[in-house]
Order: sequence, then C-alpha cells, then structure tokens
Amino acid sequence: MMDWPDQRAIKLFGIELPIIQAPMAGNTTPEMVIAVCEAGGLGSLACAQYDLRQASDALTAVQAGTKGPYNVNFFCHTPPLPDPDAMRRWRAVLAPYYLALGLDPEAALTGGGRTPFDADFCALVEEFRPEIVSFHFGLPPEPLMHRVKAAGAKIIASATTVAEARFLEAHGCDAVIAMGLEAGGHRGNFLSDDMARQVGLFALLPQVVDAVNVPVIAAGGIADARGIVAAFALGASAVQIGTAYLFTPEAKVPAVHRAALSAAADDATALTNVFTGRPARGIVNRLMREVGPMSADAPEFPLAGAAIAPLRATTEGSGDFVNLWSGQAAVLAKEMPAGALTRELARKAIEIMEGKHFFL
Amino acid sequence: MMDWPDQRAIKLFGIELPIIQAPMAGNTTPEMVIAVCEAGGLGSLACAQYDLRQASDALTAVQAGTKGPYNVNFFCHTPPLPDPDAMRRWRAVLAPYYLALGLDPEAALTGGGRTPFDADFCALVEEFRPEIVSFHFGLPPEPLMHRVKAAGAKIIASATTVAEARFLEAHGCDAVIAMGLEAGGHRGNFLSDDMARQVGLFALLPQVVDAVNVPVIAAGGIADARGIVAAFALGASAVQIGTAYLFTPEAKVPAVHRAALSAAADDATALTNVFTGRPARGIVNRLMREVGPMSADAPEFPLAGAAIAPLRATTEGSGDFVNLWSGQAAVLAKEMPAGALTRELARKAIEIMEGKHFFL
Repeated sequence: MMDWPDQRAIKLFGIELPIIQAPMAGNTTPEMVIAVCEAGGLGSLACAQYDLRQASDALTAVQAGTKGPYNVNFFCHTPPLPDPDAMRRWRAVLAPYYLALGLDPEAALTGGGRTPFDADFCALVEEFRPEIVSFHFGLPPEPLMHRVKAAGAKIIASATTVAEARFLEAHGCDAVIAMGLEAGGHRGNFLSDDMARQVGLFALLPQVVDAVNVPVIAAGGIADARGIVAAFALGASAVQIGTAYLFTPEAKVPAVHRAALSAAADDATALTNVFTGRPARGIVNRLMREVGPMSADAPEFPLAGAAIAPLRATTEGSGDFVNLWSGQAAVLAKEMPAGALTRELARKAIEIMEGKHFFL
Repeated sequence: MMDWPDQRAIKLFGIELPIIQAPMAGNTTPEMVIAVCEAGGLGSLACAQYDLRQASDALTAVQAGTKGPYNVNFFCHTPPLPDPDAMRRWRAVLAPYYLALGLDPEAALTGGGRTPFDADFCALVEEFRPEIVSFHFGLPPEPLMHRVKAAGAKIIASATTVAEARFLEAHGCDAVIAMGLEAGGHRGNFLSDDMARQVGLFALLPQVVDAVNVPVIAAGGIADARGIVAAFALGASAVQIGTAYLFTPEAKVPAVHRAALSAAADDATALTNVFTGRPARGIVNRLMREVGPMSADAPEFPLAGAAIAPLRATTEGSGDFVNLWSGQAAVLAKEMPAGALTRELARKAIEIMEGKHFFL
C-alpha cells in the first residue's frame, strides 16, 4: 500500500492516519475519541462545555482507553463582562416565545455558558500531558501557551483566513487548521468577525498552505474519501472531520438533531449567532429563521445561550430551539462506528490516490 | 503523458483540455476566447452586456479567430417590470453620494441594463451555431431551449445547489456547472435567493456529482493547478476558471480593478447586490461597505445598476463605486497570456496527478 503523500502531520502528531476527529463540544464523547485514536487517527476531546471535574473525568477515561496520542480542545474567548442592557434587548426578542410556551420571560437564567481555557484547565493539561492541545477562537495568553508547550503538547488552532493562519504560526502553533466556511459548529474566527468575508475551503486551503511553513490541516465540508484526496491535492497534511462523526454511535447527539442531520441537504445550513452569540453553522430551524440567522440583538458569546436554554428544555424533541450544528456535507456521511469510519476514510483515500478510483 | 482521469467533458465538448474560461460579461474579449480555444481549452464569450450588434460582431471575431469549439454565454433572468417606488427608495439611499459629487440625484437614468436571452439572441445562435451555449440564472423558456438544441449546441448552466443541478439536468442540460460560493461575479442561483445558505465548492461539488448523471464542471476558487486536481478528485469532469483570466492581457479590466485584483487577499471579497440588484462576489469597496454588501433597498436585477453608473463615471479611477468582481482565490493567479495560462494550468495539473508533485 502506498504512503500518504504528505507525512508532516503524521510525524508531528505521531499518528498513523492523517485524520483528525473534530472536537465537537456537547457531541464528542470519550468513547468517540478512544475509537478514533485506536483506529490510528487523532481523536479530539472537546472541553468547552465541561467544568474542571467533567474534563478530568473525560481525560481519565480517554487515557484509560487508548495508548495512542490524543488531542484536547479548548475555547479561547475572552469571557464577556455582564451586559444587562444587551441581555434585556435579547430577552425582549425572545419574550414572545417564552410567553407562547407558558414561561416567565423575566425568570433568572443559568447555564448556557462556555468556559475559556484558563490556569485551572492548564493545570489539567499539565497533569494529563496530552500529546496535542487545540484551541478555537484564537490562542490563550502567552503564559498559558508557554505552560502548555512546557507540558510537552503540540499546539494547533483554527484559522478562517490567511491572516489568522499567519498569526497562529507567529504565536507558536505547530500546525494550523484551515477552516473553510463549510464547517459545522462555531467559526474559529478571531481577528475579524465579518461573516460576509469568510472563505470557502477550496480557496482558503492553498492560500494558507502558501502563507505558512507549518503543516496545514484542512477542515470544512470533508465527509468522505474524495474530500481527503482533494485536501491533499490542495496542500493539506491532514484533514479534520466533524459532521461525519456525528453519525457514529459514539456521538452524543439528541434524536431530533440526528434526524435533522440525516435529512440535511447541501443548502440546509447557515451561519447563526442566535444560540450562543458567536457565528456557528447549523441546520436552519425555527429560531434561526425567525430571529436570525444572524441577529444584531444576540449578546456577546456565550451570553446569548442562557436565554435559549429554557426554550429548548420546554420543547424537547421539536428542534425549534436546539442548535443543530452541521457542516455543508452531511449528505456524504454514512452511519458507522467511529473507528471503522476512520479506517474506511483512510483506506478509500489511499485507493483513490493509488489510482484505483481516481483515474476512472 | 497521462490522460485526464475523467474524459466526459472533453468528449462532450470536443476539446483537448478540460478547462473552461468563465464567461465574464464586461471583462471577456473575443481575443481571450480565441486564445483559450486555440490552446485547447473552451473559451466562453459573454453576451450579457452586449446588444445584438455587439454580440454578432464578437461572434464573427471569435469564429474568424479559432476553428476550435467555443461557448457563448447568456443571462436568463426575467426582465423586471418598472418599479418606480423601489427606484425612488434606491435613489434616496444613493442621494448623499450624488450630492457630494455634485450630481443631480433626480436626473434621468440610462444604461446599467443586462439583456436576457431572447428570440433575437437565439437567432444569433442559429446563425453562428456555437458548439456550446451556457446559461446563468437558470434556463430560458422551453421553446428557446428547443431552438438552441436544434441548432446543434450542447447546453450547460450554473447550479449553486444540488436542487438547481437536478433542475438543470431534468430540463435538458448536457452538463452542469457546480458553482461554489467562492466564485467571482454574479451567483448563478435561480431556485433560491437565500445567500446565507449558499454552499462552498468543497461540499457542493461531490454532492452534485452524486446527484446528477451528466458531467459536472467545477467553478469557484480554482485559480491554479492544485485546484484542478482537487476538483477532479471530488468528481469534476472539467473546471471553469474566471478570476485567473482577469490577470491576462486579453482581459478588458479597468486599471483600478486590475490593481484591486493584484492586492486582493483571501478575505477581500463579499457577496453584494448593490451594483446590479443580484448577489455577486466582488472586492469590498466603499459602496459595498457603506450601502451593503447586501442591501434590502437595491431594486430588482438589473435595475440597481442604472443609478450606480453616474457615480462610477464621475469617480473614474477611484474604485469607490465600481464593481470589482473577483473570486476568493485571486492571490493564486499569475499575470500571463490566456493561451499560455490555459496550457500551463493543464500541464501542471497533469504533472500533479502523475505524481511528480502530489506524492512529495
């Protein structure tokens, strides 16, 4: 069997297959991470929705389940100051839904938060010493970067533009993820918040490859072996795949979300900030249609989420107020276990590159 | 030298190289079309900004310049009814610019129009019998489609979603263009006008390939050989390249547009409707920033354009009010003649596929 045409990410991470399971906060499980790592890919544990105890438990589970390298992912947003005026505006926008569902639009809110990477999470990294740590929404402050490096982790992070890729390389990343706008979930953008200028992977990837010296990981719209081959043709050293792993039994995905994914056409999704305050790609549902998909009234990330939580809890099963994260290539995904998926993607990509399918 | 891995478009069109120079109304010249055809690719003459006489002259020039097959492109929008209220709103939005430039915001407007494919243009097709006719914004009425087919032309058209690709196949297209949102100029969308749901080429292309039986032409964000290889990996039978041909001496591109293209970063562009009333991708400039990029006040295509024309004419050279059409991969383009560009793109793509560069 031939080898991968670019070995840089494989060598950097010490993995067999250049396939990274995307960290998907809320949907990834230790079982998924373990299955991908055991298959030879790089599993990613997403910590953005964990508190310290949950993160520690999940890391313990992953370490017990695989000897392979694994990745731990954190968000790097600056926690916003409380903004009562913005929250009042946002609650006014949502009040009709509260009233229609018999909820008190003035009730105190809890939850919906996301914890950024901080000194406490960094101590966990020092304790568990994951081989790779990945960041979203930029990078943590320099002292924390230094501690993560000192703990022996390779650091990777998401770039949605060439400028962001250059920033990440200049600030010490060992590889950068070129995140095309096809990708599901939160955009990784951190130097610009202008969604009108976000770039498709086909254009973004070769430009990032040309702009930085570190290996580039392609993300966004890749859900089958053809996408892996195309990414390597454009200069990627590895791919990061998210949505396809939502179709695995290891994913923690509510039934309504799973059903939406199975029915999602190519143009079923849009970028929306109504669920958290930051733009993220999800399948268009009632809240996105009626309040968004982008709303100027949504308060800063992650504040918007707390006011959505009661609506979601009250309408469980309907999908009207749930964030149905998905990339634009859900149609290409197949239901299968995470380990088998990882191996099959790699095997088929190699077959295409060997010419068995490519040169039809 | 190896052959192209997919021969369907090459055979369908009777061309040597599966590279289509995109029709770019206003920027394409007969010289460009001839150069691409003579190099073995498929040149495309754009007629949307021509009247009958100009189209006839251009077709005469192309036929005199090449024996190779060529493509003639037409827009297929329904001409809008006059809408004085909408025009009044639009002119009110633009009035401050008129006043600042010493123009009369009430002066009668002319120009800025685009002529859709009609019986007269169809008669030209019957007279010149181009090997290929391509349509944008859907397809013309059935009787005209029938006449074009009867004149011996293969028909292709742009799809921005899988649903549009299926429509085009069902209505008689011999091939479909999968137009990723990276593409410059007017989006080809015709079944939906929701720009929030437009799809990146990486996700769109394989889904279109899986959905239709006719050959698929990849468009959007392709400006070098890597993109051609990636497109074939995703199932394309040919590529359509636009922006890269704006860098050729054969392109009719104002100096200010050429300068903007040369400086355009990956995230320099956005979709805007302020220049014509329909969304098109261009490099963000003053009018897009201040009035758009998408404006609910822009009247229906192509009515918005007439009110922009005096602003552009008065500020020639500034770029503030000019449509600077570009895709998201201008950075990848190189200044060279159209024929040499066509041959080099093909040669390098074959080299990559032969493994000279792909398997580093």
